[in-house]
Amino acid sequence: MKIAVLGCGQLAQMMAQAGLPMGLKFSFLAFAGEDTRCVEGLGDIVSWDYCDDADAAYQALGCPDVLTVEREQIALDILEALAQCAPMFPPVGAVACAQHRGRERELIARLGLPCSPNCLGNEADKARALPLPLIAKSLTEGYDGKGQQKIKDADALEAFLASPDADQHLLEQWQNFDAEVSMIAVRSAEGEIAYYPLTANVHGDGILRRSVAPAAGLPDSVHQQAKDIMEKVLLELNYVGVLTIEFFVVGEQLLINEFAPRVHNSGHWTQKGAMTSQFESHVRAISGLALGSTEAVAASGMLNLLGTPASPLKLLNATTSVHWYHKQPRKGRKLGHVNMVADDHEALNAAMDRAAELLELHYPAV
Amino acid sequence: MKIAVLGCGQLAQMMAQAGLPMGLKFSFLAFAGEDTRCVEGLGDIVSWDYCDDADAAYQALGCPDVLTVEREQIALDILEALAQCAPMFPPVGAVACAQHRGRERELIARLGLPCSPNCLGNEADKARALPLPLIAKSLTEGYDGKGQQKIKDADALEAFLASPDADQHLLEQWQNFDAEVSMIAVRSAEGEIAYYPLTANVHGDGILRRSVAPAAGLPDSVHQQAKDIMEKVLLELNYVGVLTIEFFVVGEQLLINEFAPRVHNSGHWTQKGAMTSQFESHVRAISGLALGSTEAVAASGMLNLLGTPASPLKLLNATTSVHWYHKQPRKGRKLGHVNMVADDHEALNAAMDRAAELLELHYPAV
Repeated sequence: MKIAVLGCGQLAQMMAQAGLPMGLKFSFLAFAGEDTRCVEGLGDIVSWDYCDDADAAYQALGCPDVLTVEREQIALDILEALAQCAPMFPPVGAVACAQHRGRERELIARLGLPCSPNCLGNEADKARALPLPLIAKSLTEGYDGKGQQKIKDADALEAFLASPDADQHLLEQWQNFDAEVSMIAVRSAEGEIAYYPLTANVHGDGILRRSVAPAAGLPDSVHQQAKDIMEKVLLELNYVGVLTIEFFVVGEQLLINEFAPRVHNSGHWTQKGAMTSQFESHVRAISGLALGSTEAVAASGMLNLLGTPASPLKLLNATTSVHWYHKQPRKGRKLGHVNMVADDHEALNAAMDRAAELLELHYPAV
Repeated sequence: MKIAVLGCGQLAQMMAQAGLPMGLKFSFLAFAGEDTRCVEGLGDIVSWDYCDDADAAYQALGCPDVLTVEREQIALDILEALAQCAPMFPPVGAVACAQHRGRERELIARLGLPCSPNCLGNEADKARALPLPLIAKSLTEGYDGKGQQKIKDADALEAFLASPDADQHLLEQWQNFDAEVSMIAVRSAEGEIAYYPLTANVHGDGILRRSVAPAAGLPDSVHQQAKDIMEKVLLELNYVGVLTIEFFVVGEQLLINEFAPRVHNSGHWTQKGAMTSQFESHVRAISGLALGSTEAVAASGMLNLLGTPASPLKLLNATTSVHWYHKQPRKGRKLGHVNMVADDHEALNAAMDRAAELLELHYPAV
């Protein structure tokens, strides 16, 4: 069984690290200028630019049994052409939906799911009817909080609506959310679904800093809402593999922020804190294999390493492990993460604070 | 931090699979005719035969910070020469002891540790005084039960003593043991020791078939004996890294069978069933890093894949994972293993029996 991953970053790396020990084989498709350091040694790396067409790429990738993606921002025509060569999971339709906020919002509306009131940037009347402040989000560029701007008042809204690229944005009511959480779940080829517990996420400048799972302090109804929403989306998209849904928590209500049709930074804790990691779950599902247990074994935390100059091995202790992606350090770049487990959330939060201090002390970001 | 492993088999592979995600780098030293398939992609592979001397090998290995072994049967002069180039953990003395049953028995006697009554094959009077039956074990070749023969009566003993290679053997009283168990523990460079729970092992034709951990049905005193013995050996050998001691259980008494100065087949369950795998424990220790928790998270089982023609992915289920070494299948060869967890030993044993049946059904050995 051979899997070709479209993309060569750390998510592709960790999928392969989970799948190779099971006897699966991997190859990787790199797009223009992509740094392939993460996946070196894990399988053949093929550059799309050197392929005449999808069939040539499929051949160069070693005729994989299945194709998958490590990111949603891949040109739709390439995805569609490759999906003619071998099964692609998640399906192209799911990736297409997640790579465009307009399509994402259409799906949410069609399924009657909760999200913040919104309209497209070229729907001026609807925009003027939304409660201020708003946030304008690029329809197609949204990774790590990029392409977003806050619109505070009516004047700013008018200026925005008059701007030439207004129609390339989604306008959404700004939410003073109580928390951000994500749900990661996996659906097998046979339709079995397994849910990881909700993860609580803390962002800074739009980039994930910390995750804690299971998310604490939420009523059971919120956990159930997340599962119900996840199930509806998985079924509607005829999904196979790991899907992530990010939510705002407002009171006891979940509002969908966005989908990621893939393994997700907020699920990295599953490498240490769950019986089966999100990476193993994804490769099992897309390979037509039985799912592993998604049960959490402890209170788990994840700390992103942003601009850290070297693998912070001094942070290791009995309940802490370090993941380093072997990328070139650069300011603000995601270079690795730290996973931690503890008996309860209080001990976990204390351990995460200590780890953050040690990181600052011994490995100040470049 | 770069680790060079002497040897290129599955143990080297799994050390690297544990260490690379932490940001450690690896290289591997291959000896004459060694199959290097297991470690391809995980780091540079250097052939000892192409090196003029230890220093040339050290340079070709990329000037590693530390050297380690994946097996004990490596020529002592090579180990000693390489240990002049970089720190070697475990220390050469520990490897020297474990690669020769005479030295092993000397250590056991010096520390006053329990083992079956024994003598060297050239000590005829001592041999005649041992209670029959005996087992003759090659002093230097003992991997997977090879080089052993049972001596049932006095005539057979006399014939053995008169044979030309008698002095290449250890003679030991045959034990009708109740069980075979192993203890795996790790000692850090700073002298911290962490013990995995005792593992119960079932062999067939001298090759490990199954392991279960924690070993069930043994009194606390046996667990404590194992820890006490392990601690004495670790300290005596000034050991750093993972050490395995195999025992016979006779009543409530442990008798040392042999040492392995390395990660061990009977510790593979730690990949799924312990907070830190034996492979991560070993690479942390030899790299001078803090140890991880060796706590078991469930009742755990391991089933060896001997001569299995392909990765048995149909065995996967919620609590089962598969490890495949990417070696060429061959009759009786260790090609991978299956790890399982369960809530208790009864459920675990049932799951292991089912897995063995499925293996027989879908993947009959070549």
